[in-house]
Amino acid sequence: MSTDTTTETPKEYKVIGTRPIRHDGADKVTGKAVYTSDLHVPNMAFGAFIRSPHAHARIISVDTSDAENMPGVLATCTSADLPSLWDKGDNLGEGYVNYAHLSGNILARGKALYKGHAIAAVAATSTHLAEEAAKRIKVEYEPLLATTWVVDAMQKNAPLLHDKLITHTLDDEPAKPSNIAEHVRFEKGNIEEGFAAADVVIEREFKTSTIHQGYIESHVSVALWNEDGRLKIWTATQGSFATRQQVAAVLEMPVSQVTVTPCEIGGGFGGKISIYEQPVAAILSRKCGRPIKIAMRRDEVFEATGPTPGSFIRVKLGATKDGKLNAAEAWVAFDAGAYPGGFIAPGCMCALSCYDIPHATVDGFDVVLNKPKTQAYRAPGSTHVAFAVESVIDELATELKIDPIDFRLNNAAKEGTRRVDGPVYPRVGLVECLQAIQNSDHWKSPLTGPNRGRGVACGFWFNAGLKSSVAANVNADGTVTLIEGSTDIGGTRTSLAMQLAETLGINAEDVIPQVVDTDSVGFTDVTGGSRVTFATGLATYEAGLDIQRQLVKQAAKLWECDSEDITVTDGTYQTKDKSLSFKELAVQVSASNEPIVGRGAVDAPNASNAFGAHIVDLEVDPDTGKVTILRYTACQDAGKAIHPSYVEGQMQGGAVQGIGWALNEEYFYDDHGHMRNASFLDYRMPTCYDLPMIDTIIVEVANPDHPYGVRGVGEVPIVPPPPAIASAMHQATGIRFYELPMSPPKVWKAMMTKNTED
Amino acid sequence: MSTDTTTETPKEYKVIGTRPIRHDGADKVTGKAVYTSDLHVPNMAFGAFIRSPHAHARIISVDTSDAENMPGVLATCTSADLPSLWDKGDNLGEGYVNYAHLSGNILARGKALYKGHAIAAVAATSTHLAEEAAKRIKVEYEPLLATTWVVDAMQKNAPLLHDKLITHTLDDEPAKPSNIAEHVRFEKGNIEEGFAAADVVIEREFKTSTIHQGYIESHVSVALWNEDGRLKIWTATQGSFATRQQVAAVLEMPVSQVTVTPCEIGGGFGGKISIYEQPVAAILSRKCGRPIKIAMRRDEVFEATGPTPGSFIRVKLGATKDGKLNAAEAWVAFDAGAYPGGFIAPGCMCALSCYDIPHATVDGFDVVLNKPKTQAYRAPGSTHVAFAVESVIDELATELKIDPIDFRLNNAAKEGTRRVDGPVYPRVGLVECLQAIQNSDHWKSPLTGPNRGRGVACGFWFNAGLKSSVAANVNADGTVTLIEGSTDIGGTRTSLAMQLAETLGINAEDVIPQVVDTDSVGFTDVTGGSRVTFATGLATYEAGLDIQRQLVKQAAKLWECDSEDITVTDGTYQTKDKSLSFKELAVQVSASNEPIVGRGAVDAPNASNAFGAHIVDLEVDPDTGKVTILRYTACQDAGKAIHPSYVEGQMQGGAVQGIGWALNEEYFYDDHGHMRNASFLDYRMPTCYDLPMIDTIIVEVANPDHPYGVRGVGEVPIVPPPPAIASAMHQATGIRFYELPMSPPKVWKAMMTKNTED
Repeated sequence: MSTDTTTETPKEYKVIGTRPIRHDGADKVTGKAVYTSDLHVPNMAFGAFIRSPHAHARIISVDTSDAENMPGVLATCTSADLPSLWDKGDNLGEGYVNYAHLSGNILARGKALYKGHAIAAVAATSTHLAEEAAKRIKVEYEPLLATTWVVDAMQKNAPLLHDKLITHTLDDEPAKPSNIAEHVRFEKGNIEEGFAAADVVIEREFKTSTIHQGYIESHVSVALWNEDGRLKIWTATQGSFATRQQVAAVLEMPVSQVTVTPCEIGGGFGGKISIYEQPVAAILSRKCGRPIKIAMRRDEVFEATGPTPGSFIRVKLGATKDGKLNAAEAWVAFDAGAYPGGFIAPGCMCALSCYDIPHATVDGFDVVLNKPKTQAYRAPGSTHVAFAVESVIDELATELKIDPIDFRLNNAAKEGTRRVDGPVYPRVGLVECLQAIQNSDHWKSPLTGPNRGRGVACGFWFNAGLKSSVAANVNADGTVTLIEGSTDIGGTRTSLAMQLAETLGINAEDVIPQVVDTDSVGFTDVTGGSRVTFATGLATYEAGLDIQRQLVKQAAKLWECDSEDITVTDGTYQTKDKSLSFKELAVQVSASNEPIVGRGAVDAPNASNAFGAHIVDLEVDPDTGKVTILRYTACQDAGKAIHPSYVEGQMQGGAVQGIGWALNEEYFYDDHGHMRNASFLDYRMPTCYDLPMIDTIIVEVANPDHPYGVRGVGEVPIVPPPPAIASAMHQATGIRFYELPMSPPKVWKAMMTKNTED
Repeated sequence: MSTDTTTETPKEYKVIGTRPIRHDGADKVTGKAVYTSDLHVPNMAFGAFIRSPHAHARIISVDTSDAENMPGVLATCTSADLPSLWDKGDNLGEGYVNYAHLSGNILARGKALYKGHAIAAVAATSTHLAEEAAKRIKVEYEPLLATTWVVDAMQKNAPLLHDKLITHTLDDEPAKPSNIAEHVRFEKGNIEEGFAAADVVIEREFKTSTIHQGYIESHVSVALWNEDGRLKIWTATQGSFATRQQVAAVLEMPVSQVTVTPCEIGGGFGGKISIYEQPVAAILSRKCGRPIKIAMRRDEVFEATGPTPGSFIRVKLGATKDGKLNAAEAWVAFDAGAYPGGFIAPGCMCALSCYDIPHATVDGFDVVLNKPKTQAYRAPGSTHVAFAVESVIDELATELKIDPIDFRLNNAAKEGTRRVDGPVYPRVGLVECLQAIQNSDHWKSPLTGPNRGRGVACGFWFNAGLKSSVAANVNADGTVTLIEGSTDIGGTRTSLAMQLAETLGINAEDVIPQVVDTDSVGFTDVTGGSRVTFATGLATYEAGLDIQRQLVKQAAKLWECDSEDITVTDGTYQTKDKSLSFKELAVQVSASNEPIVGRGAVDAPNASNAFGAHIVDLEVDPDTGKVTILRYTACQDAGKAIHPSYVEGQMQGGAVQGIGWALNEEYFYDDHGHMRNASFLDYRMPTCYDLPMIDTIIVEVANPDHPYGVRGVGEVPIVPPPPAIASAMHQATGIRFYELPMSPPKVWKAMMTKNTED
């Protein structure tokens, strides 16, 4: 069931808010969409990696000679083929990237920092030959002590990963090497006074596991390094320009020498922003003069690409008897994996972001340890902190005997609320979301029966703006081609085409969107941060206005009048006595005028501030600890839902991933720092067989920074599920869970313990 | 030897006029450039045609059932699968295209009109299987009388090709079906008075053969008709948008439903504008749901794609004793092939275009007959008429005992000359070309020895303008990507990149040109008519100015000043106290501004009027009639040579093709209307083993319609060789040749006859 709740007087739109068939739909359902794996480039050869069997080891030597002597082997590659790049880096849209770390993660330099860390690669005439040859690369290791738990890694005597890593501490201690890569601190008001004035104070500790984005498509790339120095890369990526930038940086070449063609992408969720195999394929190609394809196996994806951090979080909240939050303290440690992660700052920014709290501090630590380098995963950092903060919020509400939605409404962030990290909110929609779930059929329907519980929780993501470029060309049949650099993960071809159609007053079907390579469109930041429909949408809107201006000029020539005499309303161009639709006019003028070429480029404002609120009903099997989700409703402020089905799809997909975090997903490490469940058989993700339909409520509080009010919707829905489920499980079992995942063994054990104690 | 003669005070350029390495050079010399044959689209299958063994036959029945029953056969296609389109048509840049004729030429409807006319096609899982299956398609024919000579086809009792073809006559005769598709007539002054006032009048008749463009790459296409109705075509074409338009028209779908990706092209010369196999591949794809590749064999290319017309021409010129041309009459019949050709008008426009003649008429006839439908071939029509007119000019000069260059200079068209078909020339460069060859080392060097002769001749092509669109994006490293719709045949990636570089004040290497598909750039007419460097160059110049405006704005923001305070000179942006190069500035502003996206679109003026003049020295072997070219100099007004090497390349290539026309090339037909030399073994084209280096002289008389003076250079150089060679052979042998090719058997026979007569 989907209910659209529009909370402000809606503008009248002709295209926006409708649900046309997606432009790439047929390609996707017929199997004609071309993924990198489908690519066959003439004369192509294949690459494979050899990876570290140790979680932490010094690399004594790498001997590729046996591999190179195998018939059919074309080239090998080690970190010696990559330039050393210490201290170089750049901001790639979703955070700063240190290129030395990026390079070291691509091929280990001196030390292997996690099991699965790539050591060397080989190219051969077939994939199987390349895999066999990779096994013949002899690597001599000196194993070192390893650590895979964030709190352990922070200890002074912890095995040190990087000799040169100096903590960016905020205190006065002399800087020295440690595993702490970054310490961020935000504060507001006076935390001591805040807690002193509180009637109830609750402090709890939380743990979350390493969790992978679990995209269906593995990482696959083809690279062709031409004799003139130009490098072509075909790959699945969330950002063709980010890939271009990273590949160019790691190989120390100008960005314009690299062309990245983004193929279709089988899921990313933040995990397909960083590069891995691309520069290796490039070097192998340069060495043997042939295009090289490298495709990761699933175990490589788990062990050597970037999951979300595991974390340890301590949260202390204080409230007055009348249910007003007065003070909050959060201490957050994220494991970054083998190299600094960069997600501690957004995590800390989101920690207390749903509430208006006068006194607060947040301390965050980014900690390296012997796991794969973490990467963005849908609202990176926000889900971790929400699990902690929203759980304590629920405990406070329970303690104060206030309805959990009322308690949140009492304290909800709204226009004018200053966040602990500084920004003051403009118009935002959290209150409207809470009201929407309070008024929902779900909340109003009683939940009965044993072992059942209901929980609610909020979620926040600030949403990115960043740069986007588009071009748009008017065809002789009155349709418009839209050329964009934003790779399409969640239906953005259509959400952008619809905005152009709305701007021009034509049908969504009359816009033909194309995602093109980095040489064929202006710079565009990553598809991530919930930014595309918002920011590339802005660029698309600009391109529409640009087309309209040109068409008015040509109409004036056709009608022999001044441009000023022509008015344009909903795609109708008229003078006092003449009137033509966009399509009619475009057809008429096309023969006798220069082609109409529109363009739009923006550096869009960051922070369109999206909020959501979820309700979950569940039942816990007392015999096994297995949790069954009975009913789930996700509500979110989309600003404006361009294509409601895709907004709902994002909400449903995000909620399901959040449910996976809550109930099942985790990297299971043994004592040697080896992941023991690196396959989809053993790494348990929820599927459609596990869950009911996720109901959705779209709230629309227009974003004032976008002509159609768009905020962006992708990130928020992953955030509320873990705390909502934890609260529901408390209701069902009487037990508070402070550790993710709340998987059957843990739940069963907790219930057994409780039964014994009772 | 190449001598650049600049005839006007040159502007100072930094990039234009230099010779950078071509941007696609490495791709071409390493074999990495992707031609359609190299393409492998997932799940691809293959198509083959069955073609008419008769030059003219009624098709009684086509039975595809045996073919369809073969294992591995996926689909068949006949003309019944194509909509009937009588009387629909469009102007496609290089002339009007009648879609019924186009469709009929793709798959014969009712009658086969020439040997090789496609009757049906079949798709199968391999090329060989498709070819075998095509043989099992049973076609029952009723053979009809055929004609392959233009004058025969014009007779009242000639076999009629089209029942519905009504001549567009200019006289008052009642219109009735005939093989005469078009009669054009131009006149100027009073022709009777003109000849009456002439002291010398010479009238001659000329014949030219059917000649193929002889591009190395065959016609190859891949089509994928998706279930959502969108059709993708990959093909080698001179015009991706022309292909889109034709395919859409023939299949009766909107242009925007068709995407054409132009692959690299292995030669076109006018012959890769029309479509052939594309709609058939599309229909087969729609029927079987798989991408279909069709590649023509060489015999199919000769017998079923469009060569240049064979022709019969009568020319009568009158001059006064002092060497002034006073009257000219030309009667021109072009064989159009099986469907109206469309090249008679340009042929007639070019016939007398080199001279200022007060009294003149030109009558032209476009005649259908049982040969493949003719297509454009480099200056279409101009070479035929130049052979005739320039030969008579030479005879007149000889008769009047005036030096042939002086005679031409006496009468040369110049600014203000009105052409017989109407236009009055603006500034043109024929006089400068004639002066340049008169002053050349070649002309000044005496030619001695027996059986040797020297000839000169002029040539003209009006050059097209038409529509072009480009986009250009500034990269973060200060380079610029140029996106164009003009397929690159002769180095136009570079000639356009150089114009953008000149406009922006950067290096040619700092522009990265890309030819993209029809969805990824604005409408752009064909690469043909010598228009790309001129017209797409204009669009590129506009895009450069557009970028400059945006960069000035961002510089003003950077320097906190007004845009008006910034001056731009040769790519240096400066205020009173600040100065940065384009590249430095672009790098600085890229981080903190919206991306810079430039665009340019033009509907460029037609007729940039290009002239050339050639000298040839040759020797005729008295024993065999074989002609050896001893020395050849081609001179041409390029307006401005952007990349002189490519201008020289065009001049050399065109001259060599013209030499092929003059000496060897012809479709050799037997009495059944069957071409008997449909292979490169039997169809004799000149190669580098046959010819000396072609010397070039570039004259630069700036075109006032282009900021850098470009005129376009591709067409003209094919025009002068046949008459120049005919005149040289007259000098060598004492014999005037009036028929092309002047091949060894003909020359030997003529010499034997002359020797007998002498």
